[in-house]
Amino acid sequence: MKSGMVVGLGTGSTAAFAVDRIGSLLKSGELKDIVGVPTFVRTYEQAKSLDIPLATLDEQPKLDLAIDGADEVDPNLDVVKGRGGALLREKMVEMAADKFVCIVAESKLVAGLGGSKDAMPIEIVQFCHLYTLKRLQALPEVAGCEARLRMNGDKPYVTDNSNYIVDLYFQTPIKDAHAASKAILALEGVVDHGLFLDMVDVCIIAGKTGIEVKERTK
Amino acid sequence: MKSGMVVGLGTGSTAAFAVDRIGSLLKSGELKDIVGVPTFVRTYEQAKSLDIPLATLDEQPKLDLAIDGADEVDPNLDVVKGRGGALLREKMVEMAADKFVCIVAESKLVAGLGGSKDAMPIEIVQFCHLYTLKRLQALPEVAGCEARLRMNGDKPYVTDNSNYIVDLYFQTPIKDAHAASKAILALEGVVDHGLFLDMVDVCIIAGKTGIEVKERTK
Repeated sequence: MKSGMVVGLGTGSTAAFAVDRIGSLLKSGELKDIVGVPTFVRTYEQAKSLDIPLATLDEQPKLDLAIDGADEVDPNLDVVKGRGGALLREKMVEMAADKFVCIVAESKLVAGLGGSKDAMPIEIVQFCHLYTLKRLQALPEVAGCEARLRMNGDKPYVTDNSNYIVDLYFQTPIKDAHAASKAILALEGVVDHGLFLDMVDVCIIAGKTGIEVKERTK
Repeated sequence: MKSGMVVGLGTGSTAAFAVDRIGSLLKSGELKDIVGVPTFVRTYEQAKSLDIPLATLDEQPKLDLAIDGADEVDPNLDVVKGRGGALLREKMVEMAADKFVCIVAESKLVAGLGGSKDAMPIEIVQFCHLYTLKRLQALPEVAGCEARLRMNGDKPYVTDNSNYIVDLYFQTPIKDAHAASKAILALEGVVDHGLFLDMVDVCIIAGKTGIEVKERTK
């Protein structure tokens, strides 16, 4: 990261660490003229408390860099994100960045996306959400998954964009994530999904024995 | 229309006429066991007042027929819809129908979509809507259009799904509506758009000299 950059600030614990670090470097004067574009309300509040100058995509449509964590990373550096519920905002900000750097613990590495058996989230409109959930579950491209509406107590979880989340749970990794992405987006009630494909440029992996940096092979 | 059918009920003045007619036929006993799936709150209220049994897509995921108007109809029976703001619900219901019948006045016929110079609506999330508006305007597939945020007084118009609408205005018709559809849907902040392609099976056109029925050539 260099002075003068516009930087997308991600969601979650790893991103929070990066935001803290940017705040310290600005305070010490090692970094200057950074503008942060947060992906989430909590990130916004954290960055604000550290006096990091902030903007939105409306004001800064082009970012030099985005930094965020991920829920799963496959060997091609394709990732699953959005278990925290902010997938659409994260995707909008990170798509706008020249370079997307992902920071994860090595426990997030999978042989194939969906392989952690944890949720792959899909943001859908509230209207006829059970219908959309059934259509998602029936897509051949995600065959074998179980689709569950994300709950918040006894009510459906509502995203920042007033939508619902359907979480897909896989027993075996998704065979073709690009085909799954297309099929999911083609459903009318779907707003976006947690597959972030062809987006991560650099992945920083923190393991027990040290830090590994992997770059996307173009 | 036959007794026992599940029928999607559209939005707007033409659809309202069809809903009235279904109500009369049910009352007279000429039709029986019809279930209506309304696309809009007003359609729901009208159908309810006429004692038409109603369901949602959640309850009736498969429709025999959908009936609705359109804002523009081109020679291939591809249409622009959603100027009334209900484009997503209309598209969800009409995609679920085996047969989609469109009823329009001949004034709605255009040589190419966008040719009426009136709005082609796009439903987008509220988050960073100006950013999404600028990206829409910049797409080569809709080159030359003007993108405007739809307003309701001095505030943005909000859809049933808590989203905003960007209206595209064209000086000349869209060159390749399928390419435009794909490019628009590929933007992260876009939920859906008013291009209804490869959907209308039959178009009933009311003109000064009578009624014309056109069927899609498969």
